[in-house]
Amino acid sequence: MLGSAYDNEDCSAAATLAIVGERWSLLILRDAMFRGLTRFSQFQKSLGLATNVLGARLEKFVEHGLMERLQPEGQAPEYRLTRKGLELKPVLLALTEWGDRWLAPGPVVYIDRADGRPVGLRLARDGDEARIDVAEVTVRRR
Amino acid sequence: MLGSAYDNEDCSAAATLAIVGERWSLLILRDAMFRGLTRFSQFQKSLGLATNVLGARLEKFVEHGLMERLQPEGQAPEYRLTRKGLELKPVLLALTEWGDRWLAPGPVVYIDRADGRPVGLRLARDGDEARIDVAEVTVRRR
Repeated sequence: MLGSAYDNEDCSAAATLAIVGERWSLLILRDAMFRGLTRFSQFQKSLGLATNVLGARLEKFVEHGLMERLQPEGQAPEYRLTRKGLELKPVLLALTEWGDRWLAPGPVVYIDRADGRPVGLRLARDGDEARIDVAEVTVRRR
Repeated sequence: MLGSAYDNEDCSAAATLAIVGERWSLLILRDAMFRGLTRFSQFQKSLGLATNVLGARLEKFVEHGLMERLQPEGQAPEYRLTRKGLELKPVLLALTEWGDRWLAPGPVVYIDRADGRPVGLRLARDGDEARIDVAEVTVRRR
């Protein structure tokens, strides 16, 4: 447990949420990550959100380097995840795994593209793969 | 990649976000998980959010079984994480790990309470601990 030195402004979780914590953001990223959507109209159709909100979210992702905006000649622009965006996948997996366990099993299973085997998140110690129960995870100052 | 059968209403990530995706929710949970905060006034002081918003968030957590509300005699009520709430820790770790890597190293490191060794999330296949790159994680229907 930390005292007041856990400065809110410096917290990486809060900093990440400042970029992806707004309503719809993580569902747009989900659709890009796992449904392969790239176009404004596809996201709009999938999520049914207001176009001004969708536009603001996509622009923010581009601004922060989570997506890049490509403009194929004569076609609608495409929004493609960068490595930085792709590395948010564990956030989606963590949300999904909790929902699967505590709410209801969802329609999808995460798999390794290479061999189709199910994949999931583990809490493990650095340097070995011993699993840690969530109750045992705490924090100390860096 | 999934087609239209990835029904948004059934998605476990979306279902989880319906409970913890509102502004402040995950930061309140962070403070409960890792700072040991339990009282309304502590959360309010830590986060500086409007009392009506904080009250609504805590009530929602109690309603969904993420926290239980205890009423010590003669004292302010306490909000304590349940196992269901505690199991959202990986969401916080995923957000923190991404922020540490892509924004700036934050002030804290996650550790195993038992031995103080750093812990983190891994993407691994079921049944073995081979690490999977985020780019290789995709989905299929359950």
